[in-house]
Amino acid sequence: MTAIGFIGLGVMGGPMAANLVKAGFEVTGFNRSPEKVQRLVDAGGRGAASAADAAEGADVVVTMLPDSPDVEAVLLGDGGVLDGLAPGTVLVDMSTIRPDVARSLAAAGAARGVGVLDAPVSGGEQGAIDATLSIMVGGEASTFEAARPVLDAVGRTIVHVGPPGAGQTVKAANQLIVAGTLQLVAEALVFLDAHGVDRSRAVEVLAGGLAGSAVLDRKAAAMLGRNFRPGFRVDLHHKDLGIVTAAAREAGVAIPAGSLAATLMGALRAQGHGDLDHGALLLQVEQLSGRSPEE
Amino acid sequence: MTAIGFIGLGVMGGPMAANLVKAGFEVTGFNRSPEKVQRLVDAGGRGAASAADAAEGADVVVTMLPDSPDVEAVLLGDGGVLDGLAPGTVLVDMSTIRPDVARSLAAAGAARGVGVLDAPVSGGEQGAIDATLSIMVGGEASTFEAARPVLDAVGRTIVHVGPPGAGQTVKAANQLIVAGTLQLVAEALVFLDAHGVDRSRAVEVLAGGLAGSAVLDRKAAAMLGRNFRPGFRVDLHHKDLGIVTAAAREAGVAIPAGSLAATLMGALRAQGHGDLDHGALLLQVEQLSGRSPEE
Amino acid sequence: MTAIGFIGLGVMGGPMAANLVKAGFEVTGFNRSPEKVQRLVDAGGRGAASAADAAEGADVVVTMLPDSPDVEAVLLGDGGVLDGLAPGTVLVDMSTIRPDVARSLAAAGAARGVGVLDAPVSGGEQGAIDATLSIMVGGEASTFEAARPVLDAVGRTIVHVGPPGAGQTVKAANQLIVAGTLQLVAEALVFLDAHGVDRSRAVEVLAGGLAGSAVLDRKAAAMLGRNFRPGFRVDLHHKDLGIVTAAAREAGVAIPAGSLAATLMGALRAQGHGDLDHGALLLQVEQLSGRSPEE
Amino acid sequence: MTAIGFIGLGVMGGPMAANLVKAGFEVTGFNRSPEKVQRLVDAGGRGAASAADAAEGADVVVTMLPDSPDVEAVLLGDGGVLDGLAPGTVLVDMSTIRPDVARSLAAAGAARGVGVLDAPVSGGEQGAIDATLSIMVGGEASTFEAARPVLDAVGRTIVHVGPPGAGQTVKAANQLIVAGTLQLVAEALVFLDAHGVDRSRAVEVLAGGLAGSAVLDRKAAAMLGRNFRPGFRVDLHHKDLGIVTAAAREAGVAIPAGSLAATLMGALRAQGHGDLDHGALLLQVEQLSGRSPEE
Repeated sequence: MTAIGFIGLGVMGGPMAANLVKAGFEVTGFNRSPEKVQRLVDAGGRGAASAADAAEGADVVVTMLPDSPDVEAVLLGDGGVLDGLAPGTVLVDMSTIRPDVARSLAAAGAARGVGVLDAPVSGGEQGAIDATLSIMVGGEASTFEAARPVLDAVGRTIVHVGPPGAGQTVKAANQLIVAGTLQLVAEALVFLDAHGVDRSRAVEVLAGGLAGSAVLDRKAAAMLGRNFRPGFRVDLHHKDLGIVTAAAREAGVAIPAGSLAATLMGALRAQGHGDLDHGALLLQVEQLSGRSPEE
Repeated sequence: MTAIGFIGLGVMGGPMAANLVKAGFEVTGFNRSPEKVQRLVDAGGRGAASAADAAEGADVVVTMLPDSPDVEAVLLGDGGVLDGLAPGTVLVDMSTIRPDVARSLAAAGAARGVGVLDAPVSGGEQGAIDATLSIMVGGEASTFEAARPVLDAVGRTIVHVGPPGAGQTVKAANQLIVAGTLQLVAEALVFLDAHGVDRSRAVEVLAGGLAGSAVLDRKAAAMLGRNFRPGFRVDLHHKDLGIVTAAAREAGVAIPAGSLAATLMGALRAQGHGDLDHGALLLQVEQLSGRSPEE
Repeated sequence: MTAIGFIGLGVMGGPMAANLVKAGFEVTGFNRSPEKVQRLVDAGGRGAASAADAAEGADVVVTMLPDSPDVEAVLLGDGGVLDGLAPGTVLVDMSTIRPDVARSLAAAGAARGVGVLDAPVSGGEQGAIDATLSIMVGGEASTFEAARPVLDAVGRTIVHVGPPGAGQTVKAANQLIVAGTLQLVAEALVFLDAHGVDRSRAVEVLAGGLAGSAVLDRKAAAMLGRNFRPGFRVDLHHKDLGIVTAAAREAGVAIPAGSLAATLMGALRAQGHGDLDHGALLLQVEQLSGRSPEE
Repeated sequence: MTAIGFIGLGVMGGPMAANLVKAGFEVTGFNRSPEKVQRLVDAGGRGAASAADAAEGADVVVTMLPDSPDVEAVLLGDGGVLDGLAPGTVLVDMSTIRPDVARSLAAAGAARGVGVLDAPVSGGEQGAIDATLSIMVGGEASTFEAARPVLDAVGRTIVHVGPPGAGQTVKAANQLIVAGTLQLVAEALVFLDAHGVDRSRAVEVLAGGLAGSAVLDRKAAAMLGRNFRPGFRVDLHHKDLGIVTAAAREAGVAIPAGSLAATLMGALRAQGHGDLDHGALLLQVEQLSGRSPEE
């Protein structure tokens, strides 16, 4: 049986680790808040006292952390987890981070005989719970094959998209599209409301045509119901859009719609809504349109 | 058996009329180009020499025309089709036109005892051929019920969204979302290309997560294959976005992303690409990014 | 002495008519509110009981009205002022209206032997008071020469820019630039405030370099002082930006920055700020940035 | 007589150093290309073989370098110029760099008893030649007073805007406004051309009203004449807009118009126009509008 060390048991990592337990893996997890470790233990896993302890003796180490600096702090540097891994271990970083950090991580792993994948996910908390995540994987093909059973236990659409960093690049593109689509749907909903159209019925028919999207299927009802409990927080999406815009700038790619979405997501955060679900873009379109939310 | 008069047998109207024949309706069709009428005859319908002839004696008259002025010219005014309809006839305009014209049409119909629906569609040529269109219907509930069997024969998701004009309002929202999503997907595709990612694989995994959309499912492959044969022409989408932006302005709704998409679709047209499929927004993102298409 | 009929004695028209009196013209004015007519009488002009009365016997008729429909209502149609003008009269419309309406007016005038100029102005209330307006004139060169002394009495930079409608086209371009520049200055001011810079000093140095503009010179101090008493109202600028975006769309010209400014001006109006000076774009940037105005 | 060490004798630094010589300062200059040093010698200055040599014994050291890394490389680090400066020397960095780098430089100077100013300029090559630059100065008031005679010799509008870094923040705001104004003017010029208006006359009248700006005064004629010889290169403006957007993001300030301008400037560069004057934004508006330049 494959032993897995799982570092980062938050909104996403928690249910993913539980699904790995369900799939029969031996999972040892670590998180800074002990109650999240306890939840894994309740689900049949083991708890560890530190990230290094969780990784100790694991065949596969999975990390699911908030941002690039977290990944660097836990894995790299003196006393970082990577230092303690035996050659032949596989390290799967499922966090959403900068592609260049993912490439650095892969290089550092290679120097120690550790195969590294960048394997960020899309699908949200529900996808994590249901083990239906989309996983976009960058790294060596042989490492991908080795990690495949682990990925299969948490995701449904799992695609090897290229060399180290490619997974994060695709995730960046994912976040660009999601932010922009949320904004478009928010604009459409306010537009429909202003014209007195029954929005639930409108969403139903929009979802069936070329305007249909996962955002419309999974987010529009909560937006109409003014339920902005995350889900995926504005703060995190703002962070990700910083990655997208920097990477587009670096590559000389014009993303006018993506840049606008990044500006609007940043404004939502600046207005104090960083802890809401990103569907709260609706609030901002309402505000710009002088329409107070009908409670 | 219900007799249907069908006016406008183009890319969309042609296959829709054929599906009505298949469903057992007696369909008499008219189009300005005789070869399109002949196609309906070949499919088992009848041809008419004029719009008025097609409508003569019909229980339900369906119109599928390019733009507001066409609908006004054919249906309203002296010698317009509406003038010749018997009270009790149902008129279903499935064109995409201005909501205010749809409301005028409904009022003109009401004055003559003719029930009028605005019932624009989404789903494109393929949806018309497969009878899987989404249909957004505005008008009286009783008229909707009367027309329901006809709509069932050409569509799959058929929703009564409100009073006269509401169908066109929802279609306007549909076109806003579609244009914006195409632009976002175009930006993502150029972004991925610039970073050396395998785009077919990327599209596969993007389609499985929260970035997933009908645009990604039905359009991305053609965009990657540089197949811009319409489909839905830039010229028509530009026309529709004129309706959206005017209706948003009128209602005081801020649609920054929709407005940007309208600007970019207009630019694509101004650059001479009006006859291409709207997926050609890709060409413009490439051009702005200084990337020549790799053939 | 040239007799002038002046129709529209509002914020702009009032001081302009008074300046014509000062310059020695015999001015007969009309406005719907009698107190504005009285002000002209106090300044040495004559009052008229109707637009037609004001125009009666005038050598030059000047109109300064809010919008295209006002100009059409007063000048065209049965009993419109144009109908009553003697051949050889010159009609100078200084309102900001649609270029196509200006062209119609010129054609209608030509049919009656009346020379028509479209001569919209820039420079605001202060420019009207100081007789330092910029005037952009469309129409026949001979008509321009005939009206020149009248224009000289109210403006400083007076340029014949082309045939009928050209004045309005240039005014549309003017309004595009002004709205966009106000937005840029608003963004810069909030940016500087967020970084703790002394904004009065910053404006002083910005005004001296390539960022310098009439907006910075004439508007920034009021914006910093939170004085949004018009000046030029958001409602009117919103109306003008509707003209700009329609004319750009019609001509196939991409104006992404202009369109964005139009969206943001429309949002300001939708938020209930239509009666404020257009410098109130500052309020919206502050709101988007989650910064409450420091009173 | 004050001895000045001047590092960076390019398009801007060259004429600035020459103006200091004219004003009676003893100027020792360094540049990597010897012919630029020779030009200073021809103008009455002295040449140095290295940056450190230029700074040796100077009362005031001025740097005018392309970007943040250049400033860091020359001034900071082992063997950097700052290391060799005697306490009491004043260091005036007139480059356009990141505000945080300016603050680091000030702190490093303070630790050595060297007063540091960030004093970026606006006004372009012509302003450098004519000694009419706008200079936005951050740093201690006493240092500003000490450096004042030097600044007076190269600029006209010289304002102390705040503590270290404030000069660069104001310069960032300057670059935001300039880029956006250039884009607005480009859109207006293409708009006017599409409507057949005489653009030189239009510029004349626009410049006299609220649309007037230094951009219109100094750039529009070259743009109309299709003269895109820099002046200020797209590459450099693109670099500066990276500073602006990062600083706005960091401070949570929404700059939608600034972001759009940054996207469009980046696109211009990606299309291979990095070496043209930033007025070349006109080319891109023409391209988006499908209008080929009339040569």
